[in-house]
Amino acid sequence: MVLPTWNLSPDRFFDPDPTQRRLARMIYQSIADLPIVAPHGHVDPRVFADPNYSFGNPAEMIIIPDHYIFRMLYSQGVPLESVGVPRRDGGPVEQNPRRIWQIFADHFHLFRGTPTGIWLAAEFSEVFGIEEKLTSENAQDIYDQIQAKLNTPEFRPRALYERFNIEVLTTTDAATDTLEHHRRIQESDWRGDIRPTFRPDAVVNIDTEGWREHIERLAEVSGVNIHNYASYIQALEQRRAFFKQMGATATDHAALTAYTERLSRMEAEVIFQKALAGQADEQDARRFTAHMIMEMARMSIEDGLVMQFHVGSLRNHNRVIYERFGPDKGADIPVRSEFTRNLRPLLNAYGNDTRLRLILFALDESAYSRELAPLAGHYPALFLGPPWWFFDSIYGMIRYREMIHETAGLYNTVGFNDDTRAYPSIPVRHDVWRRVESNWLAGLVVRGVIDEEDAMDMARASAYELAKTAYRLDKRQN
Amino acid sequence: MVLPTWNLSPDRFFDPDPTQRRLARMIYQSIADLPIVAPHGHVDPRVFADPNYSFGNPAEMIIIPDHYIFRMLYSQGVPLESVGVPRRDGGPVEQNPRRIWQIFADHFHLFRGTPTGIWLAAEFSEVFGIEEKLTSENAQDIYDQIQAKLNTPEFRPRALYERFNIEVLTTTDAATDTLEHHRRIQESDWRGDIRPTFRPDAVVNIDTEGWREHIERLAEVSGVNIHNYASYIQALEQRRAFFKQMGATATDHAALTAYTERLSRMEAEVIFQKALAGQADEQDARRFTAHMIMEMARMSIEDGLVMQFHVGSLRNHNRVIYERFGPDKGADIPVRSEFTRNLRPLLNAYGNDTRLRLILFALDESAYSRELAPLAGHYPALFLGPPWWFFDSIYGMIRYREMIHETAGLYNTVGFNDDTRAYPSIPVRHDVWRRVESNWLAGLVVRGVIDEEDAMDMARASAYELAKTAYRLDKRQN
Amino acid sequence: MVLPTWNLSPDRFFDPDPTQRRLARMIYQSIADLPIVAPHGHVDPRVFADPNYSFGNPAEMIIIPDHYIFRMLYSQGVPLESVGVPRRDGGPVEQNPRRIWQIFADHFHLFRGTPTGIWLAAEFSEVFGIEEKLTSENAQDIYDQIQAKLNTPEFRPRALYERFNIEVLTTTDAATDTLEHHRRIQESDWRGDIRPTFRPDAVVNIDTEGWREHIERLAEVSGVNIHNYASYIQALEQRRAFFKQMGATATDHAALTAYTERLSRMEAEVIFQKALAGQADEQDARRFTAHMIMEMARMSIEDGLVMQFHVGSLRNHNRVIYERFGPDKGADIPVRSEFTRNLRPLLNAYGNDTRLRLILFALDESAYSRELAPLAGHYPALFLGPPWWFFDSIYGMIRYREMIHETAGLYNTVGFNDDTRAYPSIPVRHDVWRRVESNWLAGLVVRGVIDEEDAMDMARASAYELAKTAYRLDKRQN
Repeated sequence: MVLPTWNLSPDRFFDPDPTQRRLARMIYQSIADLPIVAPHGHVDPRVFADPNYSFGNPAEMIIIPDHYIFRMLYSQGVPLESVGVPRRDGGPVEQNPRRIWQIFADHFHLFRGTPTGIWLAAEFSEVFGIEEKLTSENAQDIYDQIQAKLNTPEFRPRALYERFNIEVLTTTDAATDTLEHHRRIQESDWRGDIRPTFRPDAVVNIDTEGWREHIERLAEVSGVNIHNYASYIQALEQRRAFFKQMGATATDHAALTAYTERLSRMEAEVIFQKALAGQADEQDARRFTAHMIMEMARMSIEDGLVMQFHVGSLRNHNRVIYERFGPDKGADIPVRSEFTRNLRPLLNAYGNDTRLRLILFALDESAYSRELAPLAGHYPALFLGPPWWFFDSIYGMIRYREMIHETAGLYNTVGFNDDTRAYPSIPVRHDVWRRVESNWLAGLVVRGVIDEEDAMDMARASAYELAKTAYRLDKRQN
Repeated sequence: MVLPTWNLSPDRFFDPDPTQRRLARMIYQSIADLPIVAPHGHVDPRVFADPNYSFGNPAEMIIIPDHYIFRMLYSQGVPLESVGVPRRDGGPVEQNPRRIWQIFADHFHLFRGTPTGIWLAAEFSEVFGIEEKLTSENAQDIYDQIQAKLNTPEFRPRALYERFNIEVLTTTDAATDTLEHHRRIQESDWRGDIRPTFRPDAVVNIDTEGWREHIERLAEVSGVNIHNYASYIQALEQRRAFFKQMGATATDHAALTAYTERLSRMEAEVIFQKALAGQADEQDARRFTAHMIMEMARMSIEDGLVMQFHVGSLRNHNRVIYERFGPDKGADIPVRSEFTRNLRPLLNAYGNDTRLRLILFALDESAYSRELAPLAGHYPALFLGPPWWFFDSIYGMIRYREMIHETAGLYNTVGFNDDTRAYPSIPVRHDVWRRVESNWLAGLVVRGVIDEEDAMDMARASAYELAKTAYRLDKRQN
Repeated sequence: MVLPTWNLSPDRFFDPDPTQRRLARMIYQSIADLPIVAPHGHVDPRVFADPNYSFGNPAEMIIIPDHYIFRMLYSQGVPLESVGVPRRDGGPVEQNPRRIWQIFADHFHLFRGTPTGIWLAAEFSEVFGIEEKLTSENAQDIYDQIQAKLNTPEFRPRALYERFNIEVLTTTDAATDTLEHHRRIQESDWRGDIRPTFRPDAVVNIDTEGWREHIERLAEVSGVNIHNYASYIQALEQRRAFFKQMGATATDHAALTAYTERLSRMEAEVIFQKALAGQADEQDARRFTAHMIMEMARMSIEDGLVMQFHVGSLRNHNRVIYERFGPDKGADIPVRSEFTRNLRPLLNAYGNDTRLRLILFALDESAYSRELAPLAGHYPALFLGPPWWFFDSIYGMIRYREMIHETAGLYNTVGFNDDTRAYPSIPVRHDVWRRVESNWLAGLVVRGVIDEEDAMDMARASAYELAKTAYRLDKRQN
């Protein structure tokens, strides 16, 4: 009996037309082996700080931390407890990784045709060298194969960094983070380039749970006595300087909407004091965030940190799941987003300044062609980040190109972000991007829109160069 | 002279690339002859209750009842009176079916490239065995051919049910319906499986024209004296039980928006009494519907009826047409729809309960990838209905797959609904779905996203199995 | 060394599949040489009034007046001053056309894959006979080649009109325009058909900068003493009659939203008097425009002028650019648009009247399938204009077809508009439309949706006939 295998086609994600496919393959071959530049992601720096860090068992590595995976199981009625997702109250959840793995295998058909399915196939096949498709029957056998690999030195994160041909990888770190892991990496003799990113949401969005504790922590790590708006700004500037000194080239900001508004010094002070007194309301929070996004743009102009802005996710939509399991459990749902009016105050203040690099990420594809591409095709400071989250997928990438490139061109975009916690999935995520790009450009060539010379240049820009220049990773700073 | 014919290609709706087409054909052949499961539609049960029911003449069968057809004629200046659409005031409209048919034939080019054009071609060719394309010249001859068929026993609805290989077909029935036709079908020796669906809009939406008369009728058929909110709920529960006993497995609800809100018992009572007194305002109606949608979800959990929710059509946009001809005249126009915030109260209350099956239908495609797929890819109770109404079309089906399947997967969708009043169009509507699905899956295979084994499984699920399981039609209940 | 050339493929913009491509080529060949009907655009009529008009130098002709081009340069940090865009204050900007041309050439890669890139390649290659691709190195040489052509009589606008095979071209003219250039053209012995279009935005939108001066001018040119709403309406009717007498068949209106509302005579008078007194506020302006759009529909029914309505551009988003360089500098950004509710008052009043022809243009593609196609597929008076502005592009045209044609059919659309100021780009813009249409129809044929006979008819309608009939250019009026 022939067992089904992953059987990854060397021409995967290319159109079937032979002419286009031949060209897509040629373009892809020219970029497939370029180093990986990963300018935005969520890998824990701890995995690089400890030279002997191990990912544990297959369930710990692949299932329990990955909300892309367990949300899909949950959507079909699999309780999160049964796949080991920890409860906030420490209550009992499945502890046996083999049982968790079996449930995952039993429901593996749910991932057919999804990006998660594609990433897993490549991880199993190319990272772990497993030939057979995962089924209920072979689940335990495959578990054993992965576990055996994880026990070897070749599967330590630093070793994989080399194998994955990563040139630089950035993490995402709270403004109050002391970057101890980054310091350990830098002080080691390992030559991997791991950089922090300054993410101040918890101290900027005054409606964050525990905001005042975050401010206390900010005062502590910055050494600034935060008693008013001015000292708060000073502490933030101190932290930005520290992050920059530790190798950061970028900041990252998230908000439900893209609303920006400049508060007067007085208004900012009043809201800040209300927040310190625990008396700020929802409207205060909305306006303060809108103002601080503008302040962050101002600081970016001054210190040169690239500014990322992620807009449009309504977090923790499912109260039951949030209360039992906490945030980031696959229950964040996008909402309609508006950019033209919301970003106007910021862009009128700073959008003509070529020192600013503002990279926008959106979850509302209807804004791609209507608002985002026209804005990026005009303002010098504005760039568009790659398709985000749910749209880090083949059709997500195709729609992004179809709806953005004609108006904004390629050069107002910034290449690819993998944006992932799942370290072993980094190569396949970049590979999907490179394959989709190659096929897209081949499609333009066979349709006579561009010529091969342009296509080869554009492919290299999209796969490698744009990310480096957009994130200022071409200028080594430490 | 060679007359133009319908000339339906055996490979229609497949991509032209030979590799993909070959595969699409193979997948299609494996599902083309599966029985039809029609879990949502608007065929009049009367056509099955009377064993000798006849569709009348070609104009009565094809044109006069089909707003898809006469709206297109009207959009190009053809008065509805001239194609026999009855006036509310009983005023004169064209009575001669041959003249109506001629107008239809004279404007047949308007349907080029539309789903209606596709359905008609297949009805003419495959149901009625007509070879020639309909033109102004051959209109009367084709009229004669169709009339001749309609006069034969083979074109009685029950005979067509067998010929169409329908396994089960559901109708849509008012909450106050006595289901007399269904009773006659069940009491007959005919073995067709025709089931009712509980549609309580007219008694739930308090701004419905004649709502109080509908409530009186509800009291009458339920035997419950409806004098307050509690007895109203009791009457609805009685009707649900009756429908279930008569074979229903589902309910259906329509609203302009997806807004849900839980009213207190007191609030619900106050609004209900205002409505009985004819004093409820628009805001009352909006909140009462929002509350009742939640109540219906609660009842579904209790009685196991699958809940369908159709959102986003602004009915009777054209006042002139509404006043002269009434509702359902092709003048219902979609509006932008919001789901993430609007459904949150319902989903927080019931969305984690695997006993609930809530199937959503939308007319705003921009919500597919932004809201609907992420919601369905998380909540166990939520499923997405097939592309609805204007989007029951080739490109509508393709966009649905491109924007939904990567995030929600296939298994949070429910296969196909034909949703039609036009009984003879049922086979071709299911056939279009099966062909588009086969081509879609073939496209994923030739692009290396899934393998053939997965494709064959998914095709069968999409064409047949998902509809049965989602609507609980796999468990015969009577 | 072989220099890179434009190398325009004869099969450009066609799908690569050989069967579809062969068919696309056949369809295209049947329409490629049809005359150009250009029913909406912004070419200055002066260029035809003067038989010896010259376009000046390459920078003056191609770069300085084209916001499609300089917005893209600006988005990548090129100051508008450096490419010669004139400042409002008359301050210094680059005067040397060769330096401007060099900057353009140095950034030519920005246009890869954009419609501007496609238009420029065809202009260079087919209009100016230049073989080499524009690069930094050959920039001055190509400048010389273009300049040499521009100096010849063959490149006078009237000569190009013949060479471009234009049958009729309309301009867009303020309601207060005396149409002197049109008069000169009509009085000349040149037989080109150049027609004005009545565009009253500046006198209709009371929040226009300098509205009262525009009203004074309106009074002057109409000979009507405008002292109240009635005389204002009378003046507008006078101008419409004048435009019609001068050959106009259409009017054009722009607004931020599609909002329509019928004011009472009294309300209109009150707002008009407030506006005359300089006391109208934003809400007044919004309601007055909404009312006047309805008035314009009423007048169109009376005088037979086709009504165009362009919705959804937020003008002058970038205050810095507006203050320094004025309007139309590539800083107009679309906003979300609503049509179903906003157009309801107008459509209920006039949408059933077949004497009205209202052609809608939108910048929010999410409304295509949701609102625009269902509206156009019902109301006899409503037609959809071609994809506008940013969407006058290959993928813009494809999405338009995919999202509109299944619901509205082809015959509720109006063919193509080039909508351009860039006269030498007119042939390529129509050619892109014809190629995309041919490929689209070929795709429907190879997928068995329509047959070849239908495809040939539809191609001719889309390329030529629909524009003539929709704009009533089939009935010569002078």
